[in-house]
Amino acid sequence: MMVLITYDVSTETEGGKRRLQKVAKQCVNYGQRVQNSVFECLLDPAQFAELKSRLEKIVNPETDSLRYYFLGNNYKNRIEHYGAKKTYDPEGILII
Amino acid sequence: MMVLITYDVSTETEGGKRRLQKVAKQCVNYGQRVQNSVFECLLDPAQFAELKSRLEKIVNPETDSLRYYFLGNNYKNRIEHYGAKKTYDPEGILII
Repeated sequence: MMVLITYDVSTETEGGKRRLQKVAKQCVNYGQRVQNSVFECLLDPAQFAELKSRLEKIVNPETDSLRYYFLGNNYKNRIEHYGAKKTYDPEGILII
Repeated sequence: MMVLITYDVSTETEGGKRRLQKVAKQCVNYGQRVQNSVFECLLDPAQFAELKSRLEKIVNPETDSLRYYFLGNNYKNRIEHYGAKKTYDPEGILII
């Protein structure tokens, strides 16, 4: 299933900057970065549970937020892009 | 229908900073800000076309990007939140 992950991490402190980097690093392992704080990840339920648990250990829930959007399997019809950067096909082939 | 709008606007120049403000200002008129550059908007097709056209006139497609995710009408089951900030019910009632 396609899971869209968006995050806001407060970077007012050095700790926040480190959290931001760590969140991005985890997401990179599981999906495609489509914008600065937006990742599209093709995951099975076990992978999603794993990623979620990792991310939620990194962020500070008082200042940071994570949102997960479940786009299902027919996600291709649910996504539209405008402007800079290529759109990735998360199943492997680049759509240019 | 629920449309999730995410954007990346390059703020390296003064013009970019202005574009970022303008994009946010438009989105605020149509939906709920759930993260810095993430809005959830309940729109009918005409409203979506209007907002899209406004946003695409503001951004610089060479440096900025907009993504639209169509979450449909059953969007409530498609969204999960962790951490800071309240989750809004875009139909009006705050879920705290």
